[in-house]
Amino acid sequence: MQQLIRDFFLPCLSPSGEAAAHDGALLDLAQARLAFTTDSYVVRPPFFPGGDIGSLAVYGTVNDLAMCGARPICLSAGFILEEGFPIRDLARILDTMKRALASCGISVVTGDTKVVDRGKGDGIYINTSGIGLREHGQVWNPRQVRPGDRILVSGDIGRHGMAVLSVRTGLMFETDLESDVSALWGPVSSLLSAGIQAHCLRDLTRGGLSSALNEIAQASGLSLRIREPAVPVSEEVRSACEILGYDPFYVACEGRFVAFLPPEEADRALSVLRANPGTSGAAWIGEVCEENAGHPSPRVILRNTIGVERILDMLSGEQLPRIC
Amino acid sequence: MQQLIRDFFLPCLSPSGEAAAHDGALLDLAQARLAFTTDSYVVRPPFFPGGDIGSLAVYGTVNDLAMCGARPICLSAGFILEEGFPIRDLARILDTMKRALASCGISVVTGDTKVVDRGKGDGIYINTSGIGLREHGQVWNPRQVRPGDRILVSGDIGRHGMAVLSVRTGLMFETDLESDVSALWGPVSSLLSAGIQAHCLRDLTRGGLSSALNEIAQASGLSLRIREPAVPVSEEVRSACEILGYDPFYVACEGRFVAFLPPEEADRALSVLRANPGTSGAAWIGEVCEENAGHPSPRVILRNTIGVERILDMLSGEQLPRIC
Repeated sequence: MQQLIRDFFLPCLSPSGEAAAHDGALLDLAQARLAFTTDSYVVRPPFFPGGDIGSLAVYGTVNDLAMCGARPICLSAGFILEEGFPIRDLARILDTMKRALASCGISVVTGDTKVVDRGKGDGIYINTSGIGLREHGQVWNPRQVRPGDRILVSGDIGRHGMAVLSVRTGLMFETDLESDVSALWGPVSSLLSAGIQAHCLRDLTRGGLSSALNEIAQASGLSLRIREPAVPVSEEVRSACEILGYDPFYVACEGRFVAFLPPEEADRALSVLRANPGTSGAAWIGEVCEENAGHPSPRVILRNTIGVERILDMLSGEQLPRIC
Repeated sequence: MQQLIRDFFLPCLSPSGEAAAHDGALLDLAQARLAFTTDSYVVRPPFFPGGDIGSLAVYGTVNDLAMCGARPICLSAGFILEEGFPIRDLARILDTMKRALASCGISVVTGDTKVVDRGKGDGIYINTSGIGLREHGQVWNPRQVRPGDRILVSGDIGRHGMAVLSVRTGLMFETDLESDVSALWGPVSSLLSAGIQAHCLRDLTRGGLSSALNEIAQASGLSLRIREPAVPVSEEVRSACEILGYDPFYVACEGRFVAFLPPEEADRALSVLRANPGTSGAAWIGEVCEENAGHPSPRVILRNTIGVERILDMLSGEQLPRIC
């Protein structure tokens, strides 16, 4: 175990080689408005087009911090390895993590590895927890959302879920579909730097765009109206969804978010996002209604190309298990 | 999943009921000398005499913070549940966590739950990460250890490992053995409040007392001399070790630590620890030698009752897997 940590984990995850405290990292920060988040990653299979469980574990937690408006400053990493998990696969995952960490300018400052018996795990599970610094005064949450707010999405939806599913179903050889897994702090910090005032940001993970919108509708007590043709869906995702019988509105993303903004901020926010390489496909997809918009409770209302409206419900159960 | 979190996780782990940010916790601290640590818990079986995976997950991470000299301020919790894990067992574990958190005066401020397919987990795995505040100027690590330092242990050793093993082997019905799993911040804060200057503290987990001492000998470059009869081992642990063929020096504890102190601080430290309910069995077990004490490299030297010395080696491999 000591050898594994010394030869594999430390060189990848803590490249400064700084000998950390035995079981914890010591952090001296100039300020202390922090965000703290955790996520376990159990994606199956661990490798998929566009990424693997390692990039997912870094970006997923960085993105949770970004959605709190916090600049990521460090991560922890806890690995649960099944006995017999190939060391070359572990090395590949650690290398992906290393590159993902470098692209965010952070490192793993404390870690842990446990090995469980063969048949008592599924290759590899990774937990990452993250600490971020909030360097601005904005508070983003669904209770800040107001009637008339514009709703933006940062890019095309559903690529992560369909990329993972394409491997599971063997469809991968017939499609160029790649996961959207990526860091959201870049575009979020661009919005903050431009002085844009937002009301709520939410990343689209399990349950996709539909779940994120429904959760915000519930928490804000306001219905949302979404223009279906305005929601970007790539041709690859649309085809894969048709073949496999999924609805892209419910498919997980790992590098996309929705932003709720006052109408006067929306155009500028869209320009800022479109100027950012990861969010060049950002789009204005809808608005927040006055209260329930005629429905008995807050709803997400989808208006199609010919103006017909239907309710986009919360998914009950998981459409795609083990997607992250 | 939403129902599980609302009905089970939130009431136990975040009793204030404060609606947290969606995927992260926001912390405003008056100061920012922090410690950050993570651990995954995979103990098998999840329930054992004296505790369960829930108390282990709280105290284990609190203890890692305590060993950095940091007062625990909050935890994250990531659960990986195997499909079919009994809900009553989960409720029992969450209740233990709740009580452990309350005894430390902290709560879980951010969490995550993943469910994996039947046969792809082992009931329940828990990751906890912790943030602590360092409110003093002491730096504890093996490089601070000096020749002549006295070595204290905070209580009798080996109870956690043998308690877990007693369940695995079916010995539990014939012994009163209970795990030592408990929070170490109490005794550590007593040492700090008394103004005692320590050089290094280390909790005894995997590999037990022997591994902790060997790691400190290696890292400090100094040999350690331990008086075997001075090391407290309960009659139950001694008997169970004899029956099952284990050496108590290598058996994991989850509520014990060693402290390295300048000789002039040692007596007072021992009094402070003995006045603390969890560490009433603290004992002075040895000293740090001048350099290698005649050996080619730093060693842990064990002197028995009749004065004969032997080397206490680092355990290679794990004597007891899945103990925490």
